[in-house]
Amino acid sequence: MLHYIKKYQKKVGLPPGTLIHVGKERSEETKITIIDYDEKHFEEMGVRKVEECFPFKDKPSVTWVNIDGVHNIDVIEAIGKHFGVHPLVLEDIVNTRQRPKMEDFGDYIFVVLKMIYYKEKEDVIKSEQVSLITGPNFVISFQEIEGDIFNSIRDRLRDSKGRIRKMGADYLAYTLMDSIVDNYFVILETLGEKIEDMEDELMTNPTPETVQLIHNQKKDLIFLRKSVWPLREVLSGLERSESALIHKSTRVYFRNVYDHTIQVMDAVETSRDMLSGMLDIYLSSVSNKMNEVMKVLTIIATIFIPLTFIAGIYGMNFQYMPELGWRWGYFAVVFVMFVIGISMVSFFKRKKWF
Amino acid sequence: MLHYIKKYQKKVGLPPGTLIHVGKERSEETKITIIDYDEKHFEEMGVRKVEECFPFKDKPSVTWVNIDGVHNIDVIEAIGKHFGVHPLVLEDIVNTRQRPKMEDFGDYIFVVLKMIYYKEKEDVIKSEQVSLITGPNFVISFQEIEGDIFNSIRDRLRDSKGRIRKMGADYLAYTLMDSIVDNYFVILETLGEKIEDMEDELMTNPTPETVQLIHNQKKDLIFLRKSVWPLREVLSGLERSESALIHKSTRVYFRNVYDHTIQVMDAVETSRDMLSGMLDIYLSSVSNKMNEVMKVLTIIATIFIPLTFIAGIYGMNFQYMPELGWRWGYFAVVFVMFVIGISMVSFFKRKKWF
Amino acid sequence: MLHYIKKYQKKVGLPPGTLIHVGKERSEETKITIIDYDEKHFEEMGVRKVEECFPFKDKPSVTWVNIDGVHNIDVIEAIGKHFGVHPLVLEDIVNTRQRPKMEDFGDYIFVVLKMIYYKEKEDVIKSEQVSLITGPNFVISFQEIEGDIFNSIRDRLRDSKGRIRKMGADYLAYTLMDSIVDNYFVILETLGEKIEDMEDELMTNPTPETVQLIHNQKKDLIFLRKSVWPLREVLSGLERSESALIHKSTRVYFRNVYDHTIQVMDAVETSRDMLSGMLDIYLSSVSNKMNEVMKVLTIIATIFIPLTFIAGIYGMNFQYMPELGWRWGYFAVVFVMFVIGISMVSFFKRKKWF
Amino acid sequence: MLHYIKKYQKKVGLPPGTLIHVGKERSEETKITIIDYDEKHFEEMGVRKVEECFPFKDKPSVTWVNIDGVHNIDVIEAIGKHFGVHPLVLEDIVNTRQRPKMEDFGDYIFVVLKMIYYKEKEDVIKSEQVSLITGPNFVISFQEIEGDIFNSIRDRLRDSKGRIRKMGADYLAYTLMDSIVDNYFVILETLGEKIEDMEDELMTNPTPETVQLIHNQKKDLIFLRKSVWPLREVLSGLERSESALIHKSTRVYFRNVYDHTIQVMDAVETSRDMLSGMLDIYLSSVSNKMNEVMKVLTIIATIFIPLTFIAGIYGMNFQYMPELGWRWGYFAVVFVMFVIGISMVSFFKRKKWF
Amino acid sequence: MLHYIKKYQKKVGLPPGTLIHVGKERSEETKITIIDYDEKHFEEMGVRKVEECFPFKDKPSVTWVNIDGVHNIDVIEAIGKHFGVHPLVLEDIVNTRQRPKMEDFGDYIFVVLKMIYYKEKEDVIKSEQVSLITGPNFVISFQEIEGDIFNSIRDRLRDSKGRIRKMGADYLAYTLMDSIVDNYFVILETLGEKIEDMEDELMTNPTPETVQLIHNQKKDLIFLRKSVWPLREVLSGLERSESALIHKSTRVYFRNVYDHTIQVMDAVETSRDMLSGMLDIYLSSVSNKMNEVMKVLTIIATIFIPLTFIAGIYGMNFQYMPELGWRWGYFAVVFVMFVIGISMVSFFKRKKWF
Repeated sequence: MLHYIKKYQKKVGLPPGTLIHVGKERSEETKITIIDYDEKHFEEMGVRKVEECFPFKDKPSVTWVNIDGVHNIDVIEAIGKHFGVHPLVLEDIVNTRQRPKMEDFGDYIFVVLKMIYYKEKEDVIKSEQVSLITGPNFVISFQEIEGDIFNSIRDRLRDSKGRIRKMGADYLAYTLMDSIVDNYFVILETLGEKIEDMEDELMTNPTPETVQLIHNQKKDLIFLRKSVWPLREVLSGLERSESALIHKSTRVYFRNVYDHTIQVMDAVETSRDMLSGMLDIYLSSVSNKMNEVMKVLTIIATIFIPLTFIAGIYGMNFQYMPELGWRWGYFAVVFVMFVIGISMVSFFKRKKWF
Repeated sequence: MLHYIKKYQKKVGLPPGTLIHVGKERSEETKITIIDYDEKHFEEMGVRKVEECFPFKDKPSVTWVNIDGVHNIDVIEAIGKHFGVHPLVLEDIVNTRQRPKMEDFGDYIFVVLKMIYYKEKEDVIKSEQVSLITGPNFVISFQEIEGDIFNSIRDRLRDSKGRIRKMGADYLAYTLMDSIVDNYFVILETLGEKIEDMEDELMTNPTPETVQLIHNQKKDLIFLRKSVWPLREVLSGLERSESALIHKSTRVYFRNVYDHTIQVMDAVETSRDMLSGMLDIYLSSVSNKMNEVMKVLTIIATIFIPLTFIAGIYGMNFQYMPELGWRWGYFAVVFVMFVIGISMVSFFKRKKWF
Repeated sequence: MLHYIKKYQKKVGLPPGTLIHVGKERSEETKITIIDYDEKHFEEMGVRKVEECFPFKDKPSVTWVNIDGVHNIDVIEAIGKHFGVHPLVLEDIVNTRQRPKMEDFGDYIFVVLKMIYYKEKEDVIKSEQVSLITGPNFVISFQEIEGDIFNSIRDRLRDSKGRIRKMGADYLAYTLMDSIVDNYFVILETLGEKIEDMEDELMTNPTPETVQLIHNQKKDLIFLRKSVWPLREVLSGLERSESALIHKSTRVYFRNVYDHTIQVMDAVETSRDMLSGMLDIYLSSVSNKMNEVMKVLTIIATIFIPLTFIAGIYGMNFQYMPELGWRWGYFAVVFVMFVIGISMVSFFKRKKWF
Repeated sequence: MLHYIKKYQKKVGLPPGTLIHVGKERSEETKITIIDYDEKHFEEMGVRKVEECFPFKDKPSVTWVNIDGVHNIDVIEAIGKHFGVHPLVLEDIVNTRQRPKMEDFGDYIFVVLKMIYYKEKEDVIKSEQVSLITGPNFVISFQEIEGDIFNSIRDRLRDSKGRIRKMGADYLAYTLMDSIVDNYFVILETLGEKIEDMEDELMTNPTPETVQLIHNQKKDLIFLRKSVWPLREVLSGLERSESALIHKSTRVYFRNVYDHTIQVMDAVETSRDMLSGMLDIYLSSVSNKMNEVMKVLTIIATIFIPLTFIAGIYGMNFQYMPELGWRWGYFAVVFVMFVIGISMVSFFKRKKWF
Repeated sequence: MLHYIKKYQKKVGLPPGTLIHVGKERSEETKITIIDYDEKHFEEMGVRKVEECFPFKDKPSVTWVNIDGVHNIDVIEAIGKHFGVHPLVLEDIVNTRQRPKMEDFGDYIFVVLKMIYYKEKEDVIKSEQVSLITGPNFVISFQEIEGDIFNSIRDRLRDSKGRIRKMGADYLAYTLMDSIVDNYFVILETLGEKIEDMEDELMTNPTPETVQLIHNQKKDLIFLRKSVWPLREVLSGLERSESALIHKSTRVYFRNVYDHTIQVMDAVETSRDMLSGMLDIYLSSVSNKMNEVMKVLTIIATIFIPLTFIAGIYGMNFQYMPELGWRWGYFAVVFVMFVIGISMVSFFKRKKWF
């Protein structure tokens, strides 16, 4: 959440629609790839100049323009101008701090999504903004960095696997969203495994670090929740949309992704409930341990303090202490001490202290 | 919840509508049984080949096709094709990680339910996905494994008990759902008994394990809640449905199942409230116990530490200590100690420490 | 809540509409009383055979059939058949585990309520199901056992007090519900007094039992809440009902009962808030007490342990310890101990420990 | 809340519309004052007999009948009959345990409000029920006791200050409600000051009484909330009312009072959040204090217990203990003790215990 | 929140629409600046007399009247009268304790906003009320004090940067609101940095002051939340408004600000969740520390108390104690003590106490 706010400031005071890249600074070049297809024909190309993708706008076949890197303002602006995209939409694309949302501009539908991936090396969850502009026969997708999440879709297009080549741009947009939502399940599994491990550890060996870990997991879940929650509205909006850009036959697919989103939310909520429960277990286990410690101290102290007192009595140096001269005085005292000790122990036994 | 996510991954990156069984791997053969009936006629048969159930589609009598085992993709696909079922529906049937839902496809209504049963041996609650496809004169039910929950319905059909033989496929679908929801009450009773036992134990002998047990019960309730909660929408959807597949006279029955679902939710919520209360009781009982331990230590230490100090004084070896030579010095000191001890005890009595 | 689930099982697997009494088993005979009245005429009779009340169905005067005891299936079935009641309604009447609800069947309105009464001897709150079937000119009320809650209404009918004899069956139904809701206030007062007593006790003498008491009160409130909460929908449903069975002039009365229900809910919620607050007070008082105990121990130990150490030093038997031979050694040591003790006490005074 | 329920019982079992005063018993005589005005004319009079206010009903000028004391049933009944008020409304007026509400009876609008005032002497918040009946050209206000809250409105009417004399009965009703809602801010300020005082005290000197005080504040806020919460519906109901009794130009004023109500609710919610936070601070401060106490004990005990043990060793009376005979034995032991003590102290220093 | 209520009292009992400045008392003179522009023409002037801005009302060009200081009642009243503003609106403008709101009066739209800024010197968050009256071709903005937040907008107008000079008064109103909402992100970043710092400190060195800090952060967030929450309604109201004052093309801009508001709310909620988690970590770290302290005490006491007891035994002065005469008695006792000590240590090691 905190990163989320950082550097937002940059933009304050500028006129709306000013394109300023807000996000991690990057120096990679923006990479543009074009896939153009219909049922029979398939064409794939990387382009160097943004102008190369302009002719595809008016072709009847479906065109997918994928742009990796939104920090290059000029490219975004050129595409925006050619495809007739509202300046506020371009602003949202380059400002990668958006909340997932869907806006229907009549000529095109603008969708912002969050792709989430787990960086194993650093053990952190990262998110990347993916923006989609879906027109009547084109989809433009914007990613912050080059990723491999859409590769399987490219393969399907190449091999004409499934129905994808027979359907329109709306189905392509659906496929892209579906692959992003599917990816949430991978993250959920990683988190789920961590939670299970933590739960096992909690029972065998709870340490103070556990609270920190639970806190971190909670932060991850809050992060995930924030990315998925608004997605519900996005997808139910697409399903119920009356836009001519979404064909009736594609709606059932959007409902399907919507169902997946609900499943993700369910799993996130359940994980949160679990983590709360684990905190309770941890705290009660800590207080139990303290109880154990206190009992040990109390048992030892309660047994030996009175005995030490008795020893102290006969350690006094009074000249007239009759017991000191008795033949069996020492043994009697030791016996009395023994009796006191035993009765103390049995007292604690009865109290079930050990 | 965690199992819920496991192995989901398998599917990531595949085109939608790809049939891949997601769930526990099984090797049993898929078993298909057909019951065909109307008011006068009744026919029951197990079939070996899936094609044998195709002719029943167009018969005017009501046909119930029950399929035990959804891991056999070919069978599901063949049935789906013949009965005109959407590929996404088939995908949902074989992917047994669905959330309960109802979808009206015009020609048929698709319902996913969760059957819940208690495995006494392992002391765990398990869930199994049951999918129903209700057409104008047929119901196809899909179960993960062969179960006995529908046996009483088979008996009723055979003996023509109640109104079931006089009604259509929608009533059959209702009967199947009703028997699944009724089963929740059995689970609730098992859970209720466990909670009552735990509550009794909590008052007589609270142990650290209790927190773990409360946590496990909570997990079970979360699990149950997740299966029942979406059912409300399913059933109120069916009750208010304007589909021609649901006759007006059947709707009052769906309202009845809906009422039962609300009762189950009520009981689940109440159980959760109870469990929270029990955690409070446990924690306060632990802190009371620690208080008791501390009091014992404090009383013993507070009485004997000053006395031991006095004994220490007269154990010093100074050559000039007048009291040591006094005739009644020893007895005077013992008397003083006794007085101090008594006054300490009465001090604690006044403070109501014991 | 737990009783709520118990024995539900009985019914699992039976066809819907099967009449099986679910509830405490009883052996009393079912008692039927009939009151028939209009503005001028009044007739009251106990009947032995259920058939005796059939002729009243078509009389223009208002007829109130009260049935005490729903465990006698035959009686319920006979009445149901004659008055044209749906089998599912009869099932709900004999299965006394219903949630309050209202269902409009066109010819009659079916209402389920929970009557709550306090059993002083056993100090528990019990609930009994009351079902009402309101037709155009008759009300049939079903109670689990004979009770005296409706006696004042009988008196009013006999004496023609208020407007009751001038109004129709809907007003009679309202009067019956009103008397049940009024009764909730009696329960609330009993609970309120208990909570006030507990609060007083909490301030003067908190004991571990208090948590148990708070927990029990909470359970009672959950129980009450569960009976009252769905009543809101029932009553607002009746007020806004478009059924011809509810006259326009009666609606203002249903709104009145609805207001009372909201008052009850308000009081229940407030009581829950109060109980949560009391738990906080209790826990903080326990932790304060422990603090007190710790302070006493610490003060005593911290004063005497160093002094005992000094005494120990001069109790050592070294042959060469110059202080031991000093003339005023003993007195000097005692003085030093006194100074240390005093400074310790003043240290604790400054720390405001006592 | 508890007072709220007390003595409600009285009414149970009586026919609806029976006028029985429910509230604190009072013996003061009911006082009736009439103010009749239009833009040019103003008349103010106290009346002895209720009949004296009847002629004003049909006068075209606006009439405000104020009744102090609702325990005199006869007066209420006479007015009710003459002005055509529904018996249930009269019942609500004399039963002063109502929840704020608004009911539109066509000929008149009935509004129940709670006036809240702070009794400085007893340091408690009290509430009084104010009922308003607003007809086409009259307002009848009922108060439980004579109060001074409406005096400023009387002055405004007398002096024809503001627009009040130019507007109708609906504006008068608005003015009365506005003065009641304005009064809530006075209460909020008193509460706010108490909370600020408590917060200051919490930081300088937290005592166990603080929890009790927080609890009492919470109870006051719950009380306030219960009076204000339903007011939102009342006022938004009046603003959006389609009744001919509320002129369009008056609606903006009701919206204004509505805004004030929202402000009060906001402040109440914020105060509750603050109090929760204060409880957290208190509890953590108590546990910190206990930590401090424990540290003192532990430091003293841990330093001196080993030293005392060493002293004990050389206090043993064995005949053959070589160290005892050493020339520098005593000094060596004291030196060792000193070293142990110093290292203990530095150990605690390193652990940052003091 | 508390300041929020303070001095509200002043107004109680006055007729509505009475202009009384409620807020911090100020003595600065009210400053009025006028900017009048259309696409080609731009005029900026400070005026001394309020009457100077009256002629601009009927000019076709867009006029922005900015008023710094609302404590000067006469100025507000004069403007209100000339521009036809409702007295209640004027009352809301000078009473700076309003909640953000939007009211459509047909001829003009009235919007109240809260500008929030961070006073670094005093380390507090302050809020200032900004009111906007948007007419068909004018915007009147009221600020409590002169601020620099609108300077960038003035620059944009002067330089004709962006589309601002081409659009109408509604777009100007949007720009003003946008700059206020943008400012929230600056505050959020400041808060976010504080929270991150606190989190780091919490892990390295938690102190009792941390709870106080968390509490203060929570108060700031409650404060922020209260200013932003009602803004959602304001902005969605403007976006969906059917007023002729808001052009269709401007609505997409209001939706944009609305999105930003949601982002702010999201960040506020996330921060609250984080702070709750931090309190949990703090409390568990405190209880862990106490555990540590207790363990040290227990280990030391449990090892040395029994040993001291043994030393005490052989410090007794009985005449007949055979061990005392043994040649190796002393060494045997020391050895036994050593063995006991070692076994105690290994016992604690096994218990993983250190």
